[in-house]
Amino acid sequence: MPLLPDVEIMTIGDELLYGQVIDTNSAFMGQELAKIGLRVRQISSVSDRASEIITALDLARQRAQVVLITGGLGPTKDDLTKHVLAGYFKTELVMHEPTLRHVEGIFARFNRPMLDVNRQQALVPANCEVVFNAVGTAPGMWFDDQGTVFVSMPGVPFEMKRMMTDIVLPKLQAHFQTPAIEHVVVQTAGIGESFLAELIEDWESALPANVKLAYLPSLGNVRLRLTGTDDGHPDLRGRMEALLPALRARIGEYIFAEEDIPLEAAVGRLLAARNLTIGTAESCTGGFLAHKLTSVPGSSQYFMGSVVAYSNDIKIKQLGVNPETLAAHGAVSEATVREMAEGLRHNLGVDVALATSGIAGPDGGTPDKPVGTICIAYADQHQTVSRQFTFNRGRQINVEYTTTTILNLLRVSLPPLA
Amino acid sequence: MPLLPDVEIMTIGDELLYGQVIDTNSAFMGQELAKIGLRVRQISSVSDRASEIITALDLARQRAQVVLITGGLGPTKDDLTKHVLAGYFKTELVMHEPTLRHVEGIFARFNRPMLDVNRQQALVPANCEVVFNAVGTAPGMWFDDQGTVFVSMPGVPFEMKRMMTDIVLPKLQAHFQTPAIEHVVVQTAGIGESFLAELIEDWESALPANVKLAYLPSLGNVRLRLTGTDDGHPDLRGRMEALLPALRARIGEYIFAEEDIPLEAAVGRLLAARNLTIGTAESCTGGFLAHKLTSVPGSSQYFMGSVVAYSNDIKIKQLGVNPETLAAHGAVSEATVREMAEGLRHNLGVDVALATSGIAGPDGGTPDKPVGTICIAYADQHQTVSRQFTFNRGRQINVEYTTTTILNLLRVSLPPLA
Repeated sequence: MPLLPDVEIMTIGDELLYGQVIDTNSAFMGQELAKIGLRVRQISSVSDRASEIITALDLARQRAQVVLITGGLGPTKDDLTKHVLAGYFKTELVMHEPTLRHVEGIFARFNRPMLDVNRQQALVPANCEVVFNAVGTAPGMWFDDQGTVFVSMPGVPFEMKRMMTDIVLPKLQAHFQTPAIEHVVVQTAGIGESFLAELIEDWESALPANVKLAYLPSLGNVRLRLTGTDDGHPDLRGRMEALLPALRARIGEYIFAEEDIPLEAAVGRLLAARNLTIGTAESCTGGFLAHKLTSVPGSSQYFMGSVVAYSNDIKIKQLGVNPETLAAHGAVSEATVREMAEGLRHNLGVDVALATSGIAGPDGGTPDKPVGTICIAYADQHQTVSRQFTFNRGRQINVEYTTTTILNLLRVSLPPLA
Repeated sequence: MPLLPDVEIMTIGDELLYGQVIDTNSAFMGQELAKIGLRVRQISSVSDRASEIITALDLARQRAQVVLITGGLGPTKDDLTKHVLAGYFKTELVMHEPTLRHVEGIFARFNRPMLDVNRQQALVPANCEVVFNAVGTAPGMWFDDQGTVFVSMPGVPFEMKRMMTDIVLPKLQAHFQTPAIEHVVVQTAGIGESFLAELIEDWESALPANVKLAYLPSLGNVRLRLTGTDDGHPDLRGRMEALLPALRARIGEYIFAEEDIPLEAAVGRLLAARNLTIGTAESCTGGFLAHKLTSVPGSSQYFMGSVVAYSNDIKIKQLGVNPETLAAHGAVSEATVREMAEGLRHNLGVDVALATSGIAGPDGGTPDKPVGTICIAYADQHQTVSRQFTFNRGRQINVEYTTTTILNLLRVSLPPLA
């Protein structure tokens, strides 16, 4: 097997150094490169100054055999990348006719006049191979210079992503004859990373040498990713999938998907498969739970609506919560969220209802119920289930964690498929 | 005035290179450094390998006189930063007693047993000055090595931010005698960056030499930031504020705040000042508008609740939309959102209601109403105002843009202060 190259990611633009833009491109590229078995050696963010870009190029080629560059390809004066690259490779900019026709086509489609600066988007250094930009005007550029590959892409995330996925990653795989790699993702909720690791310790230590496990935790959710590298034997993927029954036997109750989808999409499928409709009654989550459920394309098939009841008055009038329950137990109580869920189910005529109430903070806590006290409930025609917990990591994080937790309560509480 | 140093930000950790974590720390640091007049020369993200960290340190000190390092200070084996720094500075790790007592205090407070790895958090290279970590166990470290300042901080964002704000930034200002800098922020909504630039072109070109203007655009919102550098004359801030009346005369109608707060907080203040309550009736925004309004601490003072009405049935039953309106104009129409807003105002008993309906995508468009067609309405006791527009940049972006647009409609439609 040939030695695999290291990769350097270079992002260009003053806006990154000033912190006006958060660099999400590098994380995407790092993830995708890891999936084909390539290691990122360094990420360097540099200014729009030509001399600093050139210094960075020189250093990058000492560290890595592949340099992926984003940014500085726009039509304005401060977009220098391709001019700098032409100088760096001691060549000149030439008009790339297919790109020019592509840009002209885009302007014609939107019926906009084409300026000279737009035409100049089709100029590229003479020594590059053009990487087609299916969703924008600035072409990408692939250079092979004395054994080092440089690829220049736009900084606009969806343009860069499309180029990476469609062209750059397959081309890197072919160029460097990277080994076949397979990934199996198992998504869990309702258990922390360290507890999960304990439950699967024996399974993990018995994994074959060509299969590695990564724990990818986020708020209330741990993604397990198995990466298998070609070992010369057939059916790598089949052999990896054969590892899963033993995993399911240990942590099956926490698994919500065996592919890379978010929890809200997974519960959406459970609802759709059962032909059940859902609605939410929200106090502390303030609409965020409904937002998550409706962020899934096609969710209008099962998501009917919500009542966000911040005031007690609306809890009483729109959700039918008993004023005596509020007086006796308070708005943040399991008794209240149960009534909220049941009331919403009745008022909206949905099959399943979720309800939240809590003290998101920063104010509103009491000695009895500190900031971060959260109550949640699930109701369907057979049962109402409620939980209380405390989680205090700031207002927005409290809301997000509550949302993940109740989506998981929904997952484990739904009736089995008929 | 002494020459100001350039800064390099170095983030350490394999998780950044694998793309498992998006680096938000660098953007925060870049913003804060810009505010005190320091330029970031480069951001370098490197692995957890000692040799690669050392190479990066050597290169950084050639480019910059200040190197701010984050990450690798945790208690586990792969956290190498302080060992590497001790080796780099040819010194040894010594126990820092005040830090040890601080760590012991944290464990005592949470009643947890303290392990040897926790005690080792208090070990620091002998040549450093400890930077107190008010909200965590890993101390920061300040090194002054042959004229270059190195500062090592934890990678946990809220620990790093607290250290930067409380200690590192003031210490940098004192150490390098940075000039006094003042910032004035003016926030606008409802107008694009290029239109704004045209309206204030003459004002901008007449700014004094020591005052710079930056345009910081985000979705539906442009922040203008004036940065003034000490010119030896008194009352820099007062002189900058004296520039604002001429700015207000040109773009006053678009300005929602003259400080750095989000639009949802600005409209919250307008509501609170008028003693008005608000609720939302949401179709395409699916609860995101309520989420934004309730993301402001203290919003329960004016935000009462919402009805998320994804299904037409709920639009009719919970919001009183006339079935004939839906039949004649469709759910995505100005007629429907007007009835949604008015119905919600009545049903929830709130002073002001906002309503949204649209085709967020990716499916559901028609030739007549393509994906991205959005209708919004505002209703109070005096008037109902509606708008229709098209905006198609993907489901989530459509939802966010709609939310900013309707919050701005709220801002411009509210009655004047009594």
